[in-house]
Amino acid sequence: MVPENKIDSDIVRDLHRVWHPCTQHKDYETVPPILVERAEGIYLYDRQGNRYLDVIASWWVNLFGHNHPRLNEALTAQLDKMAHVMFAGITHQPAIDLADALVRLSPKGFGKVFFSDNGSTSVEVALKMSLQYWRQTGKAEKTQFAYLKGGYHGETLGALSVCGLDIFRTKFEKVLAPNLPVDGPDCFRCPYGLQRESCNAECFEPMEKTLCENADRVAGVIVEPLVQGAAGMMMYPPVYLKKLQAICESLEIHLIFDEIAVGFGRTGSLFVCEAHDLQPTFLCLSKGITSGYLPLSATLTSDKIYSAFYGDRSDLFIHSHSYSANPLACAVANETLKMLTENNFLQTLKPKIAAIKEGGKLFDGLAGEFRQTGMIAAMELVKDKKEKFSADKRVGYQIFLEGLKRGLFLRPLGDVVYFIPPLVITEEEIAVMLTTARDCIHAVLKKG
Amino acid sequence: MVPENKIDSDIVRDLHRVWHPCTQHKDYETVPPILVERAEGIYLYDRQGNRYLDVIASWWVNLFGHNHPRLNEALTAQLDKMAHVMFAGITHQPAIDLADALVRLSPKGFGKVFFSDNGSTSVEVALKMSLQYWRQTGKAEKTQFAYLKGGYHGETLGALSVCGLDIFRTKFEKVLAPNLPVDGPDCFRCPYGLQRESCNAECFEPMEKTLCENADRVAGVIVEPLVQGAAGMMMYPPVYLKKLQAICESLEIHLIFDEIAVGFGRTGSLFVCEAHDLQPTFLCLSKGITSGYLPLSATLTSDKIYSAFYGDRSDLFIHSHSYSANPLACAVANETLKMLTENNFLQTLKPKIAAIKEGGKLFDGLAGEFRQTGMIAAMELVKDKKEKFSADKRVGYQIFLEGLKRGLFLRPLGDVVYFIPPLVITEEEIAVMLTTARDCIHAVLKKG
Repeated sequence: MVPENKIDSDIVRDLHRVWHPCTQHKDYETVPPILVERAEGIYLYDRQGNRYLDVIASWWVNLFGHNHPRLNEALTAQLDKMAHVMFAGITHQPAIDLADALVRLSPKGFGKVFFSDNGSTSVEVALKMSLQYWRQTGKAEKTQFAYLKGGYHGETLGALSVCGLDIFRTKFEKVLAPNLPVDGPDCFRCPYGLQRESCNAECFEPMEKTLCENADRVAGVIVEPLVQGAAGMMMYPPVYLKKLQAICESLEIHLIFDEIAVGFGRTGSLFVCEAHDLQPTFLCLSKGITSGYLPLSATLTSDKIYSAFYGDRSDLFIHSHSYSANPLACAVANETLKMLTENNFLQTLKPKIAAIKEGGKLFDGLAGEFRQTGMIAAMELVKDKKEKFSADKRVGYQIFLEGLKRGLFLRPLGDVVYFIPPLVITEEEIAVMLTTARDCIHAVLKKG
Repeated sequence: MVPENKIDSDIVRDLHRVWHPCTQHKDYETVPPILVERAEGIYLYDRQGNRYLDVIASWWVNLFGHNHPRLNEALTAQLDKMAHVMFAGITHQPAIDLADALVRLSPKGFGKVFFSDNGSTSVEVALKMSLQYWRQTGKAEKTQFAYLKGGYHGETLGALSVCGLDIFRTKFEKVLAPNLPVDGPDCFRCPYGLQRESCNAECFEPMEKTLCENADRVAGVIVEPLVQGAAGMMMYPPVYLKKLQAICESLEIHLIFDEIAVGFGRTGSLFVCEAHDLQPTFLCLSKGITSGYLPLSATLTSDKIYSAFYGDRSDLFIHSHSYSANPLACAVANETLKMLTENNFLQTLKPKIAAIKEGGKLFDGLAGEFRQTGMIAAMELVKDKKEKFSADKRVGYQIFLEGLKRGLFLRPLGDVVYFIPPLVITEEEIAVMLTTARDCIHAVLKKG
């Protein structure tokens, strides 16, 4: 245990007062939290001036680096007019511009944008809109959702009811709505012995079965397209999504794409649905929407869905948050979208994506899988192909600690070391990031 | 229907693209949303320069008026350092200062602060902490929550499962966890024929019965102390809360205070629990925490609760949002708390509270009840004491429209016209607000 008199007094105050998310505080007895004082570009700086590369973009939110002059300017320009105003009976330019841009940049089937505060609420909104839509169109028996066992969609209790990961849900199982878990793609351990580059999503079978058998009571299906983030950056091919869309259309089931993590350029395209010519019923967006500045989220849907709520006084969609469509956050989001779409920005990612692919070779020889989708990459470490490391070895956590020593802020998911850097990272910085991560891994595995 | 060529083109874009919260969009055919361009002090200004007094403080969030130089400065000063950084494994000064201040200013039983993004999530956090606490201390059968039939605690599905208002929950009933609704105080229509100023909360009986009969399976009780906001600013005396705390202590039930609406000075005190010497297990805060600038919330609890999550790797509390403890929001919250606590600010509310009380006489002669708790007031309008106006008359909505004509932005809850102005409103402005509201009411009731 680090004695308190050896720690910065503000960190001591933190240990006494703050309850951090997803943190076993006992870990702070040996390694206290880093007191980050400022951030610039892709780097975080602690009070002592130590620099850390923000490898996971501050929980996958930052796109253009910290302290970006254009985003700062967009925020302060809006601040001069107003920070916030309620969003019922009232509207404002930043929200109108943002809704308009999101509709313009996403697949053509989307016509309406509903704003809320974070990824969880954007998912709750989609679930609630789906339920109420079926209720108001004569199919009130459609009250369940299918979800993938590796899926993660947020941690409010509604979002958690479609989460497939035990670590998030087990403790709250008794209060969760009974939805339908489905075995999803697991390409690293493909039970069909196929490759994700060449398969035909044979693993779609359990989903097909579940939906066909339960079509009358299934309101919708929710998925993270292409990359299941919290599951450990599990990656699967778009053909799975094409099959899913086809069956949802034929069985009258809503398709919900949770692009909270993968949207806004992470995969190399603005949105997965747009890049692969897919048209879900609902699209949930958050994280990168403000390039890591402020909480904001959006749920996009069609004019058809909207029209079922239009007209009768009692048919309206009742869901609100005090800070819905916060003008400051919308202003930053508008600037973010401009930066993502001008000067062929997404084209500039191509050599970076190639650099990550090339850098993946650094992990050759390690047991496990290096995988990549655009600007997202992960190295899943295993004892051998058939066996994971025992959880009490905490291999991932040891690698996190090695990263801190070497100037990387990593945060492995279990034993999956992953990389979602700000999109503005350079090819040279990618090389440093991957080389240093490899060194961290080797240092930990060598210790045994 | 207002033809589109008669409306500002940005409002037309709004009507095409934006889905507003808690809004029947058909209403916008006759009265489109106001395009608010800027805000200053207690006033909102639309694009044409029309001014509206922000009577309900932008959904009860604004304390110090819009565009306040000190809050703007706090925000931009933090912006110069960093807008955001993730909050696991990392900490930062604004969050530490805020947690410290909240613990210092709230009842002494609170030791830890957990940050999230909005009121709904602060409630979800309290519910989840309560459930997990009981699970980890040998009482896993405690999985239900008691709540008041007039209670409102947010609209994510977990928060909605403890909401007592049909309008919010009926459409989603099938997916809500089965909690325990309890008849609560209804002082205007007191079934015991008593007065809230002198009663002994005789209406506590149903709560006592529910808790005694279900103590083994009740994890906690959630209430909005003193004022049930969304129910129509229903107000009840502190003796109810004292009884509730006593029984929760004796039956080992967690007490959750949702002070999202009433905290931060609204009742004339910083917090209801602190003013009335009450010690709930959890305290949920949001809305005024940033004085209406940015989404942020906090769930406070005791070191005892925290300690049940400390130690074993699997006992941690797993709940996160990407923007948890957003530094910009925390910086504004710190300045808000400074302003609330310096120069005897809360003392300056006393003459304002008296002015509201005096102004209440303007509503004499109207059927219904004028009620007040500190800086919150409401005029409940009824046909007569025994009968409400028929819903299809939309008396409240008509008053809202009259308000717009007269420069007030009201938003009645049903037929309850209420007042939660920014705390910086002056006595003169209070008089204008109440007189104008009375005129709106008379204009509507005269029409029949």
